Amino acid sequence: MYKAKVLIKRRPSILDPQGKAVEKGAQHLGLKNISQTRIDKYIEFLVDSDEEKAAQEEVRLYCSKLLANPIMEDFEFELEKV
Amino acid sequence: MYKAKVLIKRRPSILDPQGKAVEKGAQHLGLKNISQTRIDKYIEFLVDSDEEKAAQEEVRLYCSKLLANPIMEDFEFELEKV
Repeated sequence: MYKAKVLIKRRPSILDPQGKAVEKGAQHLGLKNISQTRIDKYIEFLVDSDEEKAAQEEVRLYCSKLLANPIMEDFEFELEKV
Repeated sequence: MYKAKVLIKRRPSILDPQGKAVEKGAQHLGLKNISQTRIDKYIEFLVDSDEEKAAQEEVRLYCSKLLANPIMEDFEFELEKV
């Protein structure tokens, strides 16, 4: 069994309006040193497989077909044996 | 200047309906080994400060007041000098 830890980030050229909005809140709170907030996704799940290669393949398929938007996001992941 | 990398996760006792929904898609795709998908937040931003202690304080305030929901989420972060 593996635990997959996936990071899905918008490409740098894609704007992040949610990050911009929450950053305005930071200014109101007096946190004036904060900039370039980007809010992305962190996803964890279990893969019930004992072969690392097969697990990687499954994670890659899950990410590219369902979790990430191939037009504007990139993903990276690591597997941890559990 | 520091780059903050923040992970905001729902507490384990809090359900994640979005993760559940996307996991159903995985079953339809034939990815039958995947379970316990949890979708959380990964946030990056810059802190324009040269004092690590002050930067940490600012990140902690930003997370606890704006980025994380203190009722159902926990956060952890690291700072990288940039």
